[in-house]
Amino acid sequence: MAFFNKLSQSARNAAGSLSNIRVAAPIRHKASASAAAPKLVPDEYDGPLMRTELPGPKSQELLKKMDSITRNTATIQMFVDYKASKGNFLVDVDGNRYLDCFNQISSVPLGYNHPALLEAVTNPDLAISMINRSALGVFPPAEYPGRMEDALLSIAPKGLECVQTMMCGSCSNENALKQTFLQYRHKARGGNPTQEEYDSSMCNQAPGAPDLSVLSFNGAFHGRTIGMLALTHSKPIHKVDIPSIDWPSSDFPALKYPIDQHAQENRVEEDRCLQMVRDKIAEYAAKGKPVAACIVEPVQAEGGDHHATPYFFIELQKILKEVGAAFIVDEVQTGGGIAGTMWAHEQWNLPEAPDVVTFAKKLITGGYYYKPEFAPKMAYQVFNTWMGEPTKLIMLEAIVETIKKDNLLENVQNSGKLLLSGLEELQAKYPQFMSRARGMGTFIAIDLSSPETAAEIVARGRKAGFILGTCGKQSLRLRPALIFQSQHAEMLLDELSHIMSEL
Amino acid sequence: MAFFNKLSQSARNAAGSLSNIRVAAPIRHKASASAAAPKLVPDEYDGPLMRTELPGPKSQELLKKMDSITRNTATIQMFVDYKASKGNFLVDVDGNRYLDCFNQISSVPLGYNHPALLEAVTNPDLAISMINRSALGVFPPAEYPGRMEDALLSIAPKGLECVQTMMCGSCSNENALKQTFLQYRHKARGGNPTQEEYDSSMCNQAPGAPDLSVLSFNGAFHGRTIGMLALTHSKPIHKVDIPSIDWPSSDFPALKYPIDQHAQENRVEEDRCLQMVRDKIAEYAAKGKPVAACIVEPVQAEGGDHHATPYFFIELQKILKEVGAAFIVDEVQTGGGIAGTMWAHEQWNLPEAPDVVTFAKKLITGGYYYKPEFAPKMAYQVFNTWMGEPTKLIMLEAIVETIKKDNLLENVQNSGKLLLSGLEELQAKYPQFMSRARGMGTFIAIDLSSPETAAEIVARGRKAGFILGTCGKQSLRLRPALIFQSQHAEMLLDELSHIMSEL
Repeated sequence: MAFFNKLSQSARNAAGSLSNIRVAAPIRHKASASAAAPKLVPDEYDGPLMRTELPGPKSQELLKKMDSITRNTATIQMFVDYKASKGNFLVDVDGNRYLDCFNQISSVPLGYNHPALLEAVTNPDLAISMINRSALGVFPPAEYPGRMEDALLSIAPKGLECVQTMMCGSCSNENALKQTFLQYRHKARGGNPTQEEYDSSMCNQAPGAPDLSVLSFNGAFHGRTIGMLALTHSKPIHKVDIPSIDWPSSDFPALKYPIDQHAQENRVEEDRCLQMVRDKIAEYAAKGKPVAACIVEPVQAEGGDHHATPYFFIELQKILKEVGAAFIVDEVQTGGGIAGTMWAHEQWNLPEAPDVVTFAKKLITGGYYYKPEFAPKMAYQVFNTWMGEPTKLIMLEAIVETIKKDNLLENVQNSGKLLLSGLEELQAKYPQFMSRARGMGTFIAIDLSSPETAAEIVARGRKAGFILGTCGKQSLRLRPALIFQSQHAEMLLDELSHIMSEL
Repeated sequence: MAFFNKLSQSARNAAGSLSNIRVAAPIRHKASASAAAPKLVPDEYDGPLMRTELPGPKSQELLKKMDSITRNTATIQMFVDYKASKGNFLVDVDGNRYLDCFNQISSVPLGYNHPALLEAVTNPDLAISMINRSALGVFPPAEYPGRMEDALLSIAPKGLECVQTMMCGSCSNENALKQTFLQYRHKARGGNPTQEEYDSSMCNQAPGAPDLSVLSFNGAFHGRTIGMLALTHSKPIHKVDIPSIDWPSSDFPALKYPIDQHAQENRVEEDRCLQMVRDKIAEYAAKGKPVAACIVEPVQAEGGDHHATPYFFIELQKILKEVGAAFIVDEVQTGGGIAGTMWAHEQWNLPEAPDVVTFAKKLITGGYYYKPEFAPKMAYQVFNTWMGEPTKLIMLEAIVETIKKDNLLENVQNSGKLLLSGLEELQAKYPQFMSRARGMGTFIAIDLSSPETAAEIVARGRKAGFILGTCGKQSLRLRPALIFQSQHAEMLLDELSHIMSEL
């Protein structure tokens, strides 16, 4: 119950009594002269409203019950009344209402109880699909191919014509990676496996279980299954005490922000990392563990919101192409519109598509797009019982339609600009505390002067009715929903300004 | 499209024209004198009904469309009209109606469109839960602890008081295994990790990424993520060309059936395998890769429906306890009632509970039960964005209630006895083709004389309106829903009898 304890501690340290809790109001942030835009969710709340000390008594009660069940509740921050939540506002079981700038670890596309989703769940197909869950790889529902087209192919990254659904981000990355291994070996061999390969694979031995490796980046997060943990290097608490695999990792660029104001030194840093990529590939080839694939996030999120320039990714793709390694872009956190484009990697203008692009979170289903040559060559190589969840596609259709109808990508671009420029003003005013404001759409972060300062700002924000995230060592991480508008950005900036003035 | 091709081939070889297709009728199987039981699903169909050649024209059309999307459709057998399906009967898009004895790879507990589930999806909580998917590890819905109690703790295996939900079988096994690694290292060290361990874990190196191993069994299936594939040894097509991990595997007993009629030689075989377990544990300890956990299925399903006696599992638990390795029972396929008990391992009468029991499929949510000492000691060690799916628990509550109300475990026991004795009669009549009939509840299999014979029986059954599965090299695999009654068992036995008479 660490977070609960931390909150209580912070409440004791700061102005903690209930009478002192400020009810945040939607005051206009001075940086902006824009009029409030019409609400994208008509009956959304006007602002946060705090009713109890945190954690509230009902949350505390439920936490005890939950802890008796899982004994693994140190990450739980509150229990939520989802029925009462609306738009950008989350309401907890104690009636406290927050502007949610973190959205279930960036997995909520349209906020809470969006009318389009309320409508989608009245679709009778959804109930049928829900109570008759199919093994999609064997007995798919008649509607499934059409839904794959409407929900997923309609937003496919340019140049990627195939798509496979999965259940979550980790298993999307797992299976995407498997398809690149299969393709790598098929190509190297010029055909199907030999009998010796089939036989040796059964006891985990070469040549059937080939000693291929995968290149990832220091600071990366690609999931927490044992395979994906070997590619994840964001925080030791994710990895320690779990056996791993000897696969190479390279540095990811540590750029200066704003990126374009430090073009020359950023280029030097990116070239250093690209050289390290080449060196690692050579090192593992020499070790007899050739690199079959490289996986990279457009922005290293969990690891600390590290950005790189299009140059870096274009050069990375070139290197991988030269050595015949697949280029997998992990858009689990960046995909679905929060970058201001449907896919963050669109903004790189690559000369050709990545080989595979994985997704989950805001797409509400896991899955991955791929080039046809990365399709498995034989039956049952990439397969599992459920292969995804049909009900998610019914809802994703409504989400995609709403993104288009309500111009939500444009909304994200506008809110993102406002938010980022507001943070830049704040860091200019408080350079001793804030630095490196950076973002892509509303996928935004800013560094604080220490992990403690970051935690303190999150705790004070929470008490004022704002849910904020952190990432890396000491970054504040913002992950608004796609319906986060200028008025919400202004509320948040006003609150941050207030917190900073009292720090 | 291998299966489709095989079906067409078989249709050409056998009496393939539409006019020759037999419409199966619910003829009483001679082995049974019981009156038909009242239907558990009142408006269920009376029998299979075949309208087209297989695959039907609409299925063929949809397959083309699907293949243009995934290029991975060789496993698809038909497209389904789930709305028209009912009880034990699946209806395909061409209007063909099958008695489903395989149930989406054993993942359907109550058949299709069960009234209790139709009722459950009208629960307004379900819509709210569905469109506001929470990050369960951080912001769980108020109702979640209560649902964990009602749906999961109410059916917990004796001696296991904690439970964690996950998304699917593979990630349940992955995370269960992670909890055993964490516990193993915590116990060995007598506390939390050292700084050196935290640091070295970040680059996948010891001591932070410890060289622990996991013991599995030849013939086992535990999933298809890279980590789980290292524990899976059922079929080479699952494993070939995917890098693996050097972990030990032991033989699983190859018993003679009926088990009690070959008690002495079966004991010799089980003792041989137990000795191999001891040898493998010693071998990997000597290699510097101590065995931290052992994972085993109560019946090796995918690998060929291999059973073992309670003696084997009791002795296995003893060995693991001696060396301090965790005992994980993978009930993904056996759990949820099909064994005639809620959990297959209940039938072993272990002196104490296994350390961890994993589930998915018929439980419709993934997850695992565990002893409190196997709970993670620190926050964010076992964690991911979704940590399961709340809507599944709402439906699981209705499933558990129906299992109790309709005495479905007793139904499974009765149908299982009838089915198994019928298969034993058939194998006595056709010893040149059939052998080793075996089962636990309705979790039943029988061996055919060759893989081709097994495939031929499945294809002929399909043409007559019966969906059957296979497993291992040449076994027929039956996985009825819990509502599979004596009349369904008789329909199936009549059809098998007919097929055998013409083979």
